[in-house]
Amino acid sequence: MPQASMTTAPTDTLALALELLQRPSVTPDDHGCQALMIEHLERIGFRIERMSIGGIDNFWATRGQHGPMLAFAGHTDVVPSGPESEWQYPPFEPRIDEAGFLCGRGAADMKGSLASMVTAVERFVTAHPDHHGRIAFLITADEEGPAVHGTRAVVERLRERHEPLDYCIVGEPSSTSHLGDVIKNGRRGSLGGVLRVRGIQGHVAYPHLARNPIHQALSALSELVNEPWDAGNDFFPATSFQISNLHAGTGATNVVPGELEVTFNFRYSSEVTQMQLRERVEQKLAAHGLDYQLDWTLNGEPFLTAEGELLEAARRACETITGHRPALSTSGGTSDGRFIATLGTQVIELGPVNATIHQVNERIRADDLDTLSRIYEAILERLFARGPHGAFS
Amino acid sequence: MPQASMTTAPTDTLALALELLQRPSVTPDDHGCQALMIEHLERIGFRIERMSIGGIDNFWATRGQHGPMLAFAGHTDVVPSGPESEWQYPPFEPRIDEAGFLCGRGAADMKGSLASMVTAVERFVTAHPDHHGRIAFLITADEEGPAVHGTRAVVERLRERHEPLDYCIVGEPSSTSHLGDVIKNGRRGSLGGVLRVRGIQGHVAYPHLARNPIHQALSALSELVNEPWDAGNDFFPATSFQISNLHAGTGATNVVPGELEVTFNFRYSSEVTQMQLRERVEQKLAAHGLDYQLDWTLNGEPFLTAEGELLEAARRACETITGHRPALSTSGGTSDGRFIATLGTQVIELGPVNATIHQVNERIRADDLDTLSRIYEAILERLFARGPHGAFS
Ligand SMILES: [Zn+2]
Ligand SMILES: [Zn+2]
Repeated sequence: MPQASMTTAPTDTLALALELLQRPSVTPDDHGCQALMIEHLERIGFRIERMSIGGIDNFWATRGQHGPMLAFAGHTDVVPSGPESEWQYPPFEPRIDEAGFLCGRGAADMKGSLASMVTAVERFVTAHPDHHGRIAFLITADEEGPAVHGTRAVVERLRERHEPLDYCIVGEPSSTSHLGDVIKNGRRGSLGGVLRVRGIQGHVAYPHLARNPIHQALSALSELVNEPWDAGNDFFPATSFQISNLHAGTGATNVVPGELEVTFNFRYSSEVTQMQLRERVEQKLAAHGLDYQLDWTLNGEPFLTAEGELLEAARRACETITGHRPALSTSGGTSDGRFIATLGTQVIELGPVNATIHQVNERIRADDLDTLSRIYEAILERLFARGPHGAFS
Repeated sequence: MPQASMTTAPTDTLALALELLQRPSVTPDDHGCQALMIEHLERIGFRIERMSIGGIDNFWATRGQHGPMLAFAGHTDVVPSGPESEWQYPPFEPRIDEAGFLCGRGAADMKGSLASMVTAVERFVTAHPDHHGRIAFLITADEEGPAVHGTRAVVERLRERHEPLDYCIVGEPSSTSHLGDVIKNGRRGSLGGVLRVRGIQGHVAYPHLARNPIHQALSALSELVNEPWDAGNDFFPATSFQISNLHAGTGATNVVPGELEVTFNFRYSSEVTQMQLRERVEQKLAAHGLDYQLDWTLNGEPFLTAEGELLEAARRACETITGHRPALSTSGGTSDGRFIATLGTQVIELGPVNATIHQVNERIRADDLDTLSRIYEAILERLFARGPHGAFS
């Protein structure tokens, strides 16, 4: 293994974050971010496997031969900047403002995390060139987009080759008011449906010759909206049902429409399965005698990382470095963690404060970069160090 | 009065209908139809008043100085042909097919009626040059369109000059299976509403931070749909409520929409007023605590022509000419009758079979043209003839 020749100075986390932020890597364009990360990782002995899938840049990098595998997972792509005129500074000209915030698109979601991961690993392997276990990076340029040819596809390759992945830290911005106050140890499932209720088009003056699909569907939709799907549990809030889109009618005010289209979404807990939800919805629709078509999309099963080595290491790391004990949460949207968890991996999300993600003037405290890097390093120390401070001493 | 010199042969109704049908007078383009009618009416002593209003051609024509006024009302405009390839014959190249149908856009709605009115009046004034009462024509080229600068505007001018209009025969195709089987002696009112329910936009994963206007509105809409607004009466079916358009959401499947827009329409009987309907709807919306805006459009008040001279004359005319007693009806959409009725006029609609109106291959039995012309003539005879057969003999 070529991991011995560590003669260069350790990288400054802020400097690496700035380099990443200067690259306008709006989904699905990686814009050289991954090459930059790879350059750093190769230098410390990582074996790199580029996986360009369906036009999306991804890479998988590993260091070490034996023992449990811990992967850092993340994405180099960012959401579009929105109107540049609303930004205080140009979104892809990152800088630190007077209040000490690092500003730029991707600062919080999630180039700050990527820089912190790289420098944490640099310091750790410098201190422990012959570390226990295997360290990996699973990086994609399509997390904010369709997310089909990104982490999901890489995970499928790992599954095919029976690559065991024990622990995963996703760098998503999990913190709410200060760095390290929240670790996400799971996510709700997301199940989408597109319901088309068929009626018979006609003229509003002759309702007896038409069948209004809106009128027919209203009570069924009311029932779906008011249904208590479950009560949640200790880890998950109650399953929620939301209608996001509702469309019927061509604009003509004297025509009874022939079809109603309803798009809805479940965010569901581990108390129900997607099959149960599907059956319960279809039963209600059938009970109301609707003539309908319903297409389902499973965006992600719920996952939960129970107490275990990873969660314990992460909690201890946060507590040691920040002085505060982090809370656990499964709230919020989906992340690529949903794909990785299907490998049986313990997955957590731990990253900077998420207050400004996907907004104009995205920013994080610049000081938090080093802190986050030290948290990641402390997790590695706890899990993979050989020597006086490590779990494997 | 110049009405004595009737030396030309009476016009053939079918020939006049063919001349009108050759003109592609799609709303709002009259395409010379009114000039053709005016030519015939001037020849028999009508005083013509062209009323071009807001770019729409209309005319008002009268003959006679004293006594009650009977107007024939109608429109020269037609709806677009739709795909010409679906027509058996080109829509503006009228002809009689092998089964004896006059085919062409406007044959039923309502150039056949216009031709029948003109020839009926020609024969009547030839036979009764010094007829009782006053005969009028109220013709517009915008009945199928916005109908703002058409009959409605002409009626306003008549109202301003206190022109009394006692009777009106609208040439709309009222018949259902054979000519003269139905006379429309009224129409339901039409009241439209556009309801905007405001919520708070958000992410489906954080429903507690959003307020879904769809979820909020469903039970109120259910209540509106299921409300028995009235039970109708001897002349009108029960008031009906129909939602024609329903829209919320931008297409994104993970966004709780900020607004729901609902377009609805009442067709209402004379048992309720538009103000009562408006109040009842607003009460229900308020009771459900909705944050909403509601814009109303009154398309037409209901009107009813009770038993009287006009209805009696029309019924007798149909019975005499066709051998069948016509039924009375107030069903169907609105017509320009709603505007004319506001003058206190007895309004009826009497015209050809409406089975093919607004469709491809619009057609009526060619024989029905003469029959309809004779029905109109018989009404004039009954109301305005002086001599052995007239009411004023
Ligand atoms: Zn992210
Ligand atoms: Zn018409």
